[in-house]
Amino acid sequence: MTAITAEMVRKLREETGAGMMECKSALVESQGDAEKARELLRKKGLAAAAKKAGRSASEGLVHAYIHPGGRVGVLVEVNCETDFVARNPDFQALVKDIAMHIAAGSPAVPLYVSKDEVPADVLDKEREIYKAQAAAAGKPANVQEKIAEGKLKEYYQSFCLLEQPFIKEPKQTVGQLVQEKIALIKENMVVRRFVRFKLGDAAGQPAGDEQ
Amino acid sequence: MTAITAEMVRKLREETGAGMMECKSALVESQGDAEKARELLRKKGLAAAAKKAGRSASEGLVHAYIHPGGRVGVLVEVNCETDFVARNPDFQALVKDIAMHIAAGSPAVPLYVSKDEVPADVLDKEREIYKAQAAAAGKPANVQEKIAEGKLKEYYQSFCLLEQPFIKEPKQTVGQLVQEKIALIKENMVVRRFVRFKLGDAAGQPAGDEQ
Repeated sequence: MTAITAEMVRKLREETGAGMMECKSALVESQGDAEKARELLRKKGLAAAAKKAGRSASEGLVHAYIHPGGRVGVLVEVNCETDFVARNPDFQALVKDIAMHIAAGSPAVPLYVSKDEVPADVLDKEREIYKAQAAAAGKPANVQEKIAEGKLKEYYQSFCLLEQPFIKEPKQTVGQLVQEKIALIKENMVVRRFVRFKLGDAAGQPAGDEQ
Repeated sequence: MTAITAEMVRKLREETGAGMMECKSALVESQGDAEKARELLRKKGLAAAAKKAGRSASEGLVHAYIHPGGRVGVLVEVNCETDFVARNPDFQALVKDIAMHIAAGSPAVPLYVSKDEVPADVLDKEREIYKAQAAAAGKPANVQEKIAEGKLKEYYQSFCLLEQPFIKEPKQTVGQLVQEKIALIKENMVVRRFVRFKLGDAAGQPAGDEQ
């Protein structure tokens, strides 16, 4: 089997933020393949993150991003468990990235933080439209259902922040980015709410706001 | 009569931003009393501002203020008529002051930009309560009305941004501050909307938002 050097372990720790023993065993399992080891750690990390998701997050940061020129601005609240983590540069970078992502409005300006926040009547209306389109295209009822569900996924990916591809790394969603940070920092984090103002734009709905 | 020196005129221009002839005639009218002259100019200025209030304001700035520590943040949109004025330091100072004022939340966190935005049902409920209190205190019906109207004024001064005493100069309201800037810059300005997030606070209603 491949020798796992301290240097390989150190490098992997820097890349993933995982513990030394976790990194070593991952490298052993991947037979020294750093790429595979990162994958293994990420899977474990995400598993750990899922466990943390239950814990209450009432600390955190309110952060703003204003596009140069002051025509678009975003205010976002991201919660974590302790104000110690609120001062953590990795957490602060996450909050900055999320605010910037929302300001960019790509693929669309998000209207909700998560799927759960899309009102039932909005979903019903969308589903209805998709089915009607499928029906107009002559699809049978059971297929219409499938098509509608597929298009609803696209709707979530367009208008729910956590489902959107992260602008700086479109291979992952914003939600996955948050999960990675949870795995790295080992504290639950929640994007609580955000609002985006565009100059002269009537629609400045505070998505993610409980009101 | 008092001689009006160029120096007196220059000083008044700096203080008020009014034109040279305006300053000179104001000083003549006030017989060289700078204080009186400022008053005269301010009255004229506010008159001029009222005339400008009709003009459409679709340019401006989206600006944010985050309290040190990142526990309170404000996003505000203030409109003016031209992007030339949007780059005017006096306008930018006004926008900064308004965002800071909202963040301070004094005398209370504003819920609305102006009186007109307070929903009718909220007003009815307030009025009802005030009347009931006056009735309980044994006041006759016509007096109850007067007391209720008086208390509604207090409500506006507490929860409508433009009616609040400006935190940096409580002798004037935020609305009067805006009027002064309109008189100074000679362009209509409108506080369009704002939102204030307090960490962990459920109520982050976007007052001044058309939604």
